[in-house]
Amino acid sequence: MLTKKQAKFLKSLQIKKYRKESGNFVVEGAKNVLEAVNSPFVVEQVYGTPSFLEEHAEILADIPCEEASEKELVSAGSFASNNAGIALVKMPRNVPLKVQGDEFVLVLDDVRDPGNLGTIIRVADWYGIKKIVCSQDTVDVFNPKVISATMGSFTRVSLYYCDLEAYLGRANAPVLGAFLEGENVHQMEFPKAGYLVMGNESKGVSEELEAKVTQKISIPRFGGAESLNVAIATAVLCDNLKR
Amino acid sequence: MLTKKQAKFLKSLQIKKYRKESGNFVVEGAKNVLEAVNSPFVVEQVYGTPSFLEEHAEILADIPCEEASEKELVSAGSFASNNAGIALVKMPRNVPLKVQGDEFVLVLDDVRDPGNLGTIIRVADWYGIKKIVCSQDTVDVFNPKVISATMGSFTRVSLYYCDLEAYLGRANAPVLGAFLEGENVHQMEFPKAGYLVMGNESKGVSEELEAKVTQKISIPRFGGAESLNVAIATAVLCDNLKR
Repeated sequence: MLTKKQAKFLKSLQIKKYRKESGNFVVEGAKNVLEAVNSPFVVEQVYGTPSFLEEHAEILADIPCEEASEKELVSAGSFASNNAGIALVKMPRNVPLKVQGDEFVLVLDDVRDPGNLGTIIRVADWYGIKKIVCSQDTVDVFNPKVISATMGSFTRVSLYYCDLEAYLGRANAPVLGAFLEGENVHQMEFPKAGYLVMGNESKGVSEELEAKVTQKISIPRFGGAESLNVAIATAVLCDNLKR
Repeated sequence: MLTKKQAKFLKSLQIKKYRKESGNFVVEGAKNVLEAVNSPFVVEQVYGTPSFLEEHAEILADIPCEEASEKELVSAGSFASNNAGIALVKMPRNVPLKVQGDEFVLVLDDVRDPGNLGTIIRVADWYGIKKIVCSQDTVDVFNPKVISATMGSFTRVSLYYCDLEAYLGRANAPVLGAFLEGENVHQMEFPKAGYLVMGNESKGVSEELEAKVTQKISIPRFGGAESLNVAIATAVLCDNLKR
């Protein structure tokens, strides 16, 4: 059983301020909990339904586990239903990522929607992109809606939040940026490594960052839609990058 | 001012049963309302804030308009905020689409999430795909969350709901289908026209429809994610189709 105090603590971790204070975040649902347990993340506790804990007893063997009902999991979390569990996980520190000379790094300039960030992390993971650098205003990766939308990919993709202007000012690799008027990605050769900058949902890439972009690129349009959602555009660009 | 009766009527149109009864659906927010007015759809009424109605007086000239406050628009609609308007629009009948010999048609097998369907319609519009055939269990296109996610593209893409097994049984063009284990789309030649079947969010393409697919195709994976969201996969496949 989840005590009132435990439920209140888990619930508080939906808010960034309390995650920062405690150094913890929560992971909800079977897929994400199992991915967290199977990853380098430090899982401090799993609250699970009796059937979830029993079914995964082997993989959960080294983790402190406690039984909780579906109702308790829902009231302590952000899901409308949860017949599996919630993991309490230690939040890693925000540390600069060591970029290798042969890899592409995603750069997110103020992506605000949790679903979009989570989906972008899942897309990056699909395409083997392991690092994402985010502006300070980009939504927090440890927001439970972001974690949920990653479908476990948060365990394989590292994020670093910083001042992007300063960061890209020090970059010594091509900086591609997604714009409505750029080079057609169906017709260009991509460099072997570098950065790919994606902009805010409504404003796109900011003027300050535009100045750091060395090559503007575009997804060709064949119909009437004015734009594509940022997670959709990221996926299409990664697919073009990797072919 | 919106009367209580009008507000109640608009609100009722969030439910499919009432849309069917009245033959109407609602379109919310500046972008979608203006796209509806500028389209072949029959807009019966626009409820708008005084500033929205004034700013777009010219394009709204032939439409019956009524003033409403932001608060009234929110309470009569599905948005958390709406400083523009709501349009009451006549719902077109569900009629079979005439497929030309040189076009690609999307086929959706039981896509359930309104945000996914809306995003798929927007993606189809971006790539110049004008027709989508949906299974009877696919979420209704006139659901306000679907309309909202299309960002106006619902005015340029036609949908038809039917029994897909029977429909594809009569198809005399290639039927491509998205599967995790299919031909790598980075290495294959696409036919010039045909159908592209996308499956349900968790179950993928059903067995019954799999039997109608003439070519299974896949987006190559470079990392650890197990799958891609259906709207993301649709966008990547459309991009490959159109290059």
